[in-house]
Amino acid sequence: MCTLLLACGNVALSAAHAAPAAAQVCASCHGPLGQGAGMYPRIAGQPQTYIREQLLLMRSGTRVNELMQPLVKTLSDKDIDALAAYFSGIHPPFEAAKNTASSGEIALGRQLVTMGDWGRNAPACVRCHGPELSGMPSGIPALAGQSGQYLLARLQAFRHMRSDPLPVTIMSRASRNLSDAEFRAVSAYIETLKPGERAEMIRPAPDKSYKFQAQSPENFTPPPTSAIPSGPDGEMIWRGLLVFDNTQQYARSYVGNALNCSNCHVDQGRQAGSAPMWAAYVEYPKYRSKNKKVNTIEERIQGCFRFSMNGKPPAADSPDMKALVTYFHWLASGLPVGITPKGAGYPKLAKPVKPADIQRGAGVYAANCALCHGGDGNGYSSGGTQVFPPLWGARSFNWGAGMQGISTAAEFIKANMPFGAGETLTNQQAWDVAAFVVSHERPQDPRFTGSVQETREKYHAKNSYYGRVVNGKLLGAPPDKK
Amino acid sequence: MCTLLLACGNVALSAAHAAPAAAQVCASCHGPLGQGAGMYPRIAGQPQTYIREQLLLMRSGTRVNELMQPLVKTLSDKDIDALAAYFSGIHPPFEAAKNTASSGEIALGRQLVTMGDWGRNAPACVRCHGPELSGMPSGIPALAGQSGQYLLARLQAFRHMRSDPLPVTIMSRASRNLSDAEFRAVSAYIETLKPGERAEMIRPAPDKSYKFQAQSPENFTPPPTSAIPSGPDGEMIWRGLLVFDNTQQYARSYVGNALNCSNCHVDQGRQAGSAPMWAAYVEYPKYRSKNKKVNTIEERIQGCFRFSMNGKPPAADSPDMKALVTYFHWLASGLPVGITPKGAGYPKLAKPVKPADIQRGAGVYAANCALCHGGDGNGYSSGGTQVFPPLWGARSFNWGAGMQGISTAAEFIKANMPFGAGETLTNQQAWDVAAFVVSHERPQDPRFTGSVQETREKYHAKNSYYGRVVNGKLLGAPPDKK
Repeated sequence: MCTLLLACGNVALSAAHAAPAAAQVCASCHGPLGQGAGMYPRIAGQPQTYIREQLLLMRSGTRVNELMQPLVKTLSDKDIDALAAYFSGIHPPFEAAKNTASSGEIALGRQLVTMGDWGRNAPACVRCHGPELSGMPSGIPALAGQSGQYLLARLQAFRHMRSDPLPVTIMSRASRNLSDAEFRAVSAYIETLKPGERAEMIRPAPDKSYKFQAQSPENFTPPPTSAIPSGPDGEMIWRGLLVFDNTQQYARSYVGNALNCSNCHVDQGRQAGSAPMWAAYVEYPKYRSKNKKVNTIEERIQGCFRFSMNGKPPAADSPDMKALVTYFHWLASGLPVGITPKGAGYPKLAKPVKPADIQRGAGVYAANCALCHGGDGNGYSSGGTQVFPPLWGARSFNWGAGMQGISTAAEFIKANMPFGAGETLTNQQAWDVAAFVVSHERPQDPRFTGSVQETREKYHAKNSYYGRVVNGKLLGAPPDKK
Repeated sequence: MCTLLLACGNVALSAAHAAPAAAQVCASCHGPLGQGAGMYPRIAGQPQTYIREQLLLMRSGTRVNELMQPLVKTLSDKDIDALAAYFSGIHPPFEAAKNTASSGEIALGRQLVTMGDWGRNAPACVRCHGPELSGMPSGIPALAGQSGQYLLARLQAFRHMRSDPLPVTIMSRASRNLSDAEFRAVSAYIETLKPGERAEMIRPAPDKSYKFQAQSPENFTPPPTSAIPSGPDGEMIWRGLLVFDNTQQYARSYVGNALNCSNCHVDQGRQAGSAPMWAAYVEYPKYRSKNKKVNTIEERIQGCFRFSMNGKPPAADSPDMKALVTYFHWLASGLPVGITPKGAGYPKLAKPVKPADIQRGAGVYAANCALCHGGDGNGYSSGGTQVFPPLWGARSFNWGAGMQGISTAAEFIKANMPFGAGETLTNQQAWDVAAFVVSHERPQDPRFTGSVQETREKYHAKNSYYGRVVNGKLLGAPPDKK
């Protein structure tokens, strides 16, 4: 590697980042280092894939931008590649804005950025852009370092978009139900972040005026996080929320993979159709055919840790278990006990017209899932946090998890995926991509009897690829028997 | 003791039971051995206290009986004592009737006799008359061996009574809301019992048509026992019900005294105002100042076992604990989570006009409580079953139990006592008798620090007699420090 370094302000650029000729054109608006200003976005340090993709979209006219269009039209594929490589490799420093927004506005922005508002179909920004809002290598842009002015304009623009590709679909849905005041709050908060600063969820001030009321199981809404009371009850609820949302950090010792509870139970267990915890709370104790006994809510949770988290379940009376149960109890406030509410579990999905097909599923995956979960299914991390969960391999759920069942995966995917854009895949696509995802190797079923065939017969119906040969490999086989 | 025995049928009578002269008059209707027939009740083997009391009541005209009145008027106190002693000592055999009632009628009778219908203020007959319906020495009559005809007539008569004394109040309330068809069923079932046969609760056939529905927390009714489903869920619910109702038998190893859960939670935890378990289920997890932490429902139950049951609590994941939680969950069917429902706990009771007084309480106790709990507070057993719980002493709840608090005891008593006749004592009577009951010695507080004074200061407010001198004795003091 070349060691020649060019001093440029206080930014070190390796020779590999020598500016391509076309960069001068960019620099005239985006600044010499692509650091951006005002309405001209920061392009420095954006994922290479993202820059390339946006230039291509603007060149083709899919992304409409009157200023950029004539400039980009002149670029060759090679120019675009060079520009993407160049600007993605520059990391000029930026400063947190001395914001003029009120503390209430910043707090609102922080809340939306870190927790979102799923009731209005708005996932938290950090769920995709990462805890530092520094983007993802697969093509999710960094938000940190952008001017509030630019962020606001983009959010407003997304509100009116309806078109593909996928990220636009997600952003358009996420922005559609938010107000300009909320956009300003989000933009202002992001502008205040220092480079590398984590956008951390904070506990909102308890809203003492919130009134817990009986609700219909046909139309249930869990209480907002602001309704968590102060005092020891609130501390326990909040602890449960953190364990649930960031199991990796708050209950690490019980987890054997890279997942969080909230990966399969979207919006911290609140989202209807995503196996919400308020529904589970009122349903259990109940009989489960999986272990052929009546399960308490604690036993049900232990099942998740054993299989979906590929871990060692916390004891029924362990502090983390108590915190989870307390959180679920609070989430279910107002919901009648023992009556399966609308939105419980994952919605049943009609059988596909054509049998689920792994190869077709691979195509669906590449178009709709790889952006977040990676081509290798391993997900993406950022700032030390697993942002997108691994879907297969050693760091994913094991062969005993419900989600490795083709139908369960299809139901989950249809209702909840792509993240923030559930119900956009066709039934056939959901079945196909489910088959693709669950036909990959993953950690052994903890109930493994010593024989793949026997374990398959005992625990896996036709609904699983466990014990079946896919691409010449026997899935579920111990390493020495592959 | 005289060993001379008179053979009389197949009944052996000791000389102590030589008939008093007046018995011949009785015999003309009640039979030579007082065994009764048809409308003439069996008086043989009735508790001596009961026979004496009834004769006195009939002589005074308080108990109206046109046939008996002229006969009884001639009896002296001495005659009455002799008759009571004589007939209570005779136990002529009886046979179970070859009943002509339908099996459905018998099943209904059995249900009412063994489980009652608290929704209509009708406690189960066995709760007072004992599991063999053989009465109590303190003056509760035997029902076993009576003709169905007589039982029916008495039940119908009770329906129209309003007067004292206490047992009449209880029976009049219990019978007021039942139909003649139900009376016939009860009478028929009792008639079918063999001597010494236990009237055992049986699981009713699951009523598949029962519809669990959302209910208001302002007006909640738990599902009837007939709504317990078949299958493993139902088995678990039923197990929890049995543990709750007859903890002595079904969870013996966790209990250190002679109590059952249902002693403080009337009607198997269903009764509003008697700390019903459906209310507790939806309230927990919640913070308790008693142990200064958020308690799960399991921890709350463990508290009961430690203090009220003076025992060793079952583990959170023990089968009995899981059964209890499953039962409570089912009882709460349709009740909204996290909202304190009407009927939770014991109803708050206004402070008494005059400070609670132990001596006045002793009088209230003698008149209203001793019939069932005994003058010594030790309760009564029958057929190996503790029918009435001990209220103090080694076999009662310990000094850590909520019920040893004067106000808690007063609240419970006012709402629920006398059994089946709650809300009949005045507030003052409730406070006085509560003070009397909880001013007796009982098992040590398990949190005992080694010093009564310190333990009192740490755990007992003004609301307790723990560490106070009553009748010259320091309550709570270890045996060597009395």
